Amino acid sequence: MDNLDAWILTIGNEIVNGVITDTNRETITRELRTAGITVKGMSSVGDDPALIADALENAMARASITIVSGGLGPTEDDKTAASAASFLGVDLKLDKEQLARIEDRFRQWQRPMAPSNTKQAMLPAGSTPIPNDHGTAPGFMIEKNGRVALFFPGVPRELIRMLREQGLPRIAERFGVSRDVFRTRTLIVYGFSESKLGEILADVAQDEDSYHLAFLPRFPIIRLRLDARGTTQELADHILGTKLNVIRERLEQNIISEDGSSIEEVVLGLMKARNLKLSLAESITGGMIGDMITRVPGSSSVFMGSVVSYSNEMKSALLNVSGETLSTYGAVSHQCAREMAEGARVVGKADIGVSVTGIAGPSGGTPEKPVGTFYVGLATEQTTLSRGFLMPGIRDWVRTLAAMQGLDILRRYLLGFRLHGTEE
Amino acid sequence: MDNLDAWILTIGNEIVNGVITDTNRETITRELRTAGITVKGMSSVGDDPALIADALENAMARASITIVSGGLGPTEDDKTAASAASFLGVDLKLDKEQLARIEDRFRQWQRPMAPSNTKQAMLPAGSTPIPNDHGTAPGFMIEKNGRVALFFPGVPRELIRMLREQGLPRIAERFGVSRDVFRTRTLIVYGFSESKLGEILADVAQDEDSYHLAFLPRFPIIRLRLDARGTTQELADHILGTKLNVIRERLEQNIISEDGSSIEEVVLGLMKARNLKLSLAESITGGMIGDMITRVPGSSSVFMGSVVSYSNEMKSALLNVSGETLSTYGAVSHQCAREMAEGARVVGKADIGVSVTGIAGPSGGTPEKPVGTFYVGLATEQTTLSRGFLMPGIRDWVRTLAAMQGLDILRRYLLGFRLHGTEE
Repeated sequence: MDNLDAWILTIGNEIVNGVITDTNRETITRELRTAGITVKGMSSVGDDPALIADALENAMARASITIVSGGLGPTEDDKTAASAASFLGVDLKLDKEQLARIEDRFRQWQRPMAPSNTKQAMLPAGSTPIPNDHGTAPGFMIEKNGRVALFFPGVPRELIRMLREQGLPRIAERFGVSRDVFRTRTLIVYGFSESKLGEILADVAQDEDSYHLAFLPRFPIIRLRLDARGTTQELADHILGTKLNVIRERLEQNIISEDGSSIEEVVLGLMKARNLKLSLAESITGGMIGDMITRVPGSSSVFMGSVVSYSNEMKSALLNVSGETLSTYGAVSHQCAREMAEGARVVGKADIGVSVTGIAGPSGGTPEKPVGTFYVGLATEQTTLSRGFLMPGIRDWVRTLAAMQGLDILRRYLLGFRLHGTEE
Repeated sequence: MDNLDAWILTIGNEIVNGVITDTNRETITRELRTAGITVKGMSSVGDDPALIADALENAMARASITIVSGGLGPTEDDKTAASAASFLGVDLKLDKEQLARIEDRFRQWQRPMAPSNTKQAMLPAGSTPIPNDHGTAPGFMIEKNGRVALFFPGVPRELIRMLREQGLPRIAERFGVSRDVFRTRTLIVYGFSESKLGEILADVAQDEDSYHLAFLPRFPIIRLRLDARGTTQELADHILGTKLNVIRERLEQNIISEDGSSIEEVVLGLMKARNLKLSLAESITGGMIGDMITRVPGSSSVFMGSVVSYSNEMKSALLNVSGETLSTYGAVSHQCAREMAEGARVVGKADIGVSVTGIAGPSGGTPEKPVGTFYVGLATEQTTLSRGFLMPGIRDWVRTLAAMQGLDILRRYLLGFRLHGTEE
């Protein structure tokens, strides 16, 4: 779909009143980008018929395709369909097929249908309905002066599915372009800043007609989304595979997963496959690692528990960290990290114990051990090891990185990769 | 500033390429709303001079005030100032005072200034500079046909401060309205759905010229933001106070804080003031409560630690939960929650122990104890109590609510409020 351009129009009082942060704009943009359509601009207006018609006219004057979302609900506030009809100079007309679909949906939910839901089947005369398989409000497509506008509900879940399953194919059909095949892959990458990763992948990040790479940072990881398109499945797979190989070669062991899995999902998967049990001793992270792990359904078959030993007393009483270690080396040390990991392994009756101890700040730093100093430990029946890190920053940042390094030392140990951080 | 309306225009390739989610639009909207200015609409375009000039013309044709952000940086990509100049039919002109400010800033940072930063002091001839006290790029204000547009950098931190400190006062001055005084208060509310809260506060949520109430839900809490304005400080305080009293009367003990403090900050503050120590026993929440608490700087003076006892072995070994309790009542029971709380208190050498145990799903539910069943316990030297809850939903939702109830039973206990949940 080369050279096709689009405008995005989102509608709703809650957007222009600042009540919600409208993420539909970015969702639609990403879908269009993937399909090779350039977004020229976007706009938003409240549920006001005059403003909607004006914004629609503006959008359709500027791009071949306008994607509209919002204002298709059953209430008085929802004025998008009526505004589109008035823009076209036509009336709203009851679409019986869409009405039947809405009625079906309520039967399926075993809920009574409110009379107001009938309004959702009132579409501009002459428009093409876009059935909604995921909710009640159907969308529709209109055409004027050789340009099209597609209307979708504002509910994000319904919008994205309808756009993918019905919107993009209709656009391809309408503009007489071959139906390209799309392939997408999301890599989770850890260990680089966004700008560093941008440098490493500068050549691979160059846009091509058939390929697009997006950096989506979500501290402390970066999601790399690869989109490839080709006239056949083989071609799309080939383009994706070629780029993927370059990225693998450059990033190596810093790729956490190639299917969007989080690091906690990856380590749980590795441990479950080997029937290994895990327990933790968390100090600086205060329970964050346990929280991350137990977010994953089924984690209880691997995770035995965690001792969040914020006080030295708990480190001694529950993890058996020696008083000598605490007095000689301190709670933030290689030695303490190793004893905590070993203690966690024993008390949790686990195969592997992992520990994290450090100084998150803002206070508590010393010249020798400034804020951002932390140690991670790992203990198995055969071996006990530790690594040190200095990653200064604000408290939340330090804690999150400490949790990530705790999980990453485990991932690297399980995969036989080299470990990060300093040895004693 | 009644009857003033505005359009928001954000500029940047990263917006229309879907690389970032542009939150500046909503930030600007909320600031304008607070100042009594109605947002008619918003739009976004990439760093393309023709598109920027077109979008600017469109915006200024539709509203008295246009707020523009983005594209004022030092790079080739940043084309906003040049586009504004071309829209006005004027040249860019070096503003020596703004250049001196940029140079000062780099001296202050002790960093060399790149020649490209000079570009940031090139403003449309005849425009009014808006100095930037928080970064390098100055903003500026232009006027055409009696309407104004104010330009700010896209860096959120700089944008919001410049808009508040300089933008809104200049708008007030330009449109000859009295400088109203604004008062803002943010309440954290827990225990209602957004729609339920909307019903309870329906009358108080009605917009008035001098007052605005916004619901900003962040599951599981809702932030209520009250904005009042008046010609004097006393009047603004009076309006705010009157509304606040109604809200206090309706929501009572469900108001967590009136200054935006989180529930963990509130309980830590209450315990610190009484010199009390806390320890936790977390099962269903996997460490989430400990994580929430230790996010707060200085929490170590109150928080001793947490036993995340995911396995029954750890419940017995570390928390001294009796085998009889586990076999007779199960790990998800009033009895177990009480023994866990007591165990946490003892092992952590704390004044208060709090526990949470439950079934987060998706599996593990039974007809008697379905997914979403959880119990919270609280133990002091004098008393041990527990409360039961059934809050079905997806795993993340259940875990988050369990963490919230664990913190809320502590808050209510400390304040002498009635406790939620079922007794045994």
